[in-house]
Amino acid sequence: TSSPAMEMHGSGRDKFLEYPFVSAPHRDMMIDLISMVEDRLGSQLLPCSLPIDAQYCQNENGTAQASLHIRSGHGSSLVDFILGSWLHCKLPTGASLNITSLLAYLNLSTDAPNFVAEVIQGSPTSLVFLLDLPPRKDLVMHPDYLQTFYENTQLDTHRQMLAKLPEVQPYISSSLYLRHYFSPTAILIRIEVKADESGQMEDIIKSHLNPIAKEVLRIWLDHCACGGREVGEEEKTYLKKRDNMMKNKSIEIDLGSNFPRLFGPEVANRVLGAIREVYNV
Amino acid sequence: TSSPAMEMHGSGRDKFLEYPFVSAPHRDMMIDLISMVEDRLGSQLLPCSLPIDAQYCQNENGTAQASLHIRSGHGSSLVDFILGSWLHCKLPTGASLNITSLLAYLNLSTDAPNFVAEVIQGSPTSLVFLLDLPPRKDLVMHPDYLQTFYENTQLDTHRQMLAKLPEVQPYISSSLYLRHYFSPTAILIRIEVKADESGQMEDIIKSHLNPIAKEVLRIWLDHCACGGREVGEEEKTYLKKRDNMMKNKSIEIDLGSNFPRLFGPEVANRVLGAIREVYNV
Repeated sequence: TSSPAMEMHGSGRDKFLEYPFVSAPHRDMMIDLISMVEDRLGSQLLPCSLPIDAQYCQNENGTAQASLHIRSGHGSSLVDFILGSWLHCKLPTGASLNITSLLAYLNLSTDAPNFVAEVIQGSPTSLVFLLDLPPRKDLVMHPDYLQTFYENTQLDTHRQMLAKLPEVQPYISSSLYLRHYFSPTAILIRIEVKADESGQMEDIIKSHLNPIAKEVLRIWLDHCACGGREVGEEEKTYLKKRDNMMKNKSIEIDLGSNFPRLFGPEVANRVLGAIREVYNV
Repeated sequence: TSSPAMEMHGSGRDKFLEYPFVSAPHRDMMIDLISMVEDRLGSQLLPCSLPIDAQYCQNENGTAQASLHIRSGHGSSLVDFILGSWLHCKLPTGASLNITSLLAYLNLSTDAPNFVAEVIQGSPTSLVFLLDLPPRKDLVMHPDYLQTFYENTQLDTHRQMLAKLPEVQPYISSSLYLRHYFSPTAILIRIEVKADESGQMEDIIKSHLNPIAKEVLRIWLDHCACGGREVGEEEKTYLKKRDNMMKNKSIEIDLGSNFPRLFGPEVANRVLGAIREVYNV
């Protein structure tokens, strides 16, 4: 009884939620985060409106696959959109690269921070984990904003906890732009376990990354996504410029460089075009 | 034949340049940096105008001493002021804390970054080293600024070089504000050597910190302190606000918390008052 449009929406969503290439604890963490967002904000979110061939794509020889799921917020919501994605590709070395991410951008009804969680797994024994509420204002100019969203919420305690694990090293992005894009409490770490201990990586995801990711998301839902903040007209103009700059640069640095290489120009243009449409940049 | 004022100026300066409590390589590095600044910019700098009792101070029982030397720029210079300082205090543990720093702030004739070099030595075998050109604009909003001063100058190569030394760990400030104050290429490191190898620390200062500090200062002198950049009137208003915020917060976080504790309220008020006068905040 469902319409073809519903089915298309449904099949892209099912594929996305499969996370077919990552370990069970990794998949569980991403599903937990998406469930938390949808439980709290679902009634404010439209179904994914991406064309089906932008919701899932692969390259010619099947060595690279990606799934993308974007839900925009209703007009009355503070949510601009929620973007979930996974990417899988076989590396020339025989290993696989798996990237899973969940981004949440707010709109101009608030200047509260966005949310980002990303896992970049380059092998069963090594991954990079990014978890942050990227600020939407210049923190040097606005120490009150720093205090409201980063000090009062004690976000840094979670970063400190992970930093104590012996398997954890700081991760420093090669992009200077991204280094400054994140907040001072951002969790930007590389986790390495011994070659014969990939089970230990799964334990770390389950026991440490999952609960901390949920706690940081809970802070974002409580303090950012659900309470509006008055933004004056002049400020709004500035905020829009800054938001657009962040969107443009993040597409350029992340997808813009990897997608054409992995999927060829045609698929890359289709997917990037669909993303730019939702991003409105 | 010199006037009393000249002599007072001279004696405060001599005391400052003594760096009486730090190792020879540490002192050499600071003197090298000051000489480079004065060789290049000296003709644009006024003599230190601090009252003599703010140029040098100590606490009642002599366990804490500090020296401060500030030279403002002429009206036609891009330099707002250059601030050199050292601080020595005996810790209850019997060890000594020594902090030496050189800051250079530019004025509103340019929006180019400032310069900071600081060594915080808590024991003969452990120190924190900060070296950066703190940006004066929001880098998320101004990627062209990031490119001009941080990417094109390849500042990050120096950070990368030091990060490779086995004795080096990243240093993460407890102040979230300071974490964001610095640029994405900032050198913010903790260096630890084994308990019986304080000679190794001196070697690291001499062979690694000194040449890199000079190279970063050379970049600042070539690209920031000597070539003006047009700053529009509206931009200037914003830049002034942001500069003042940086100055206020850095006094508050750094001196404002330590000076009263170390020197008592009377000395602290005198010195902080003299600094605020030069800072113009």
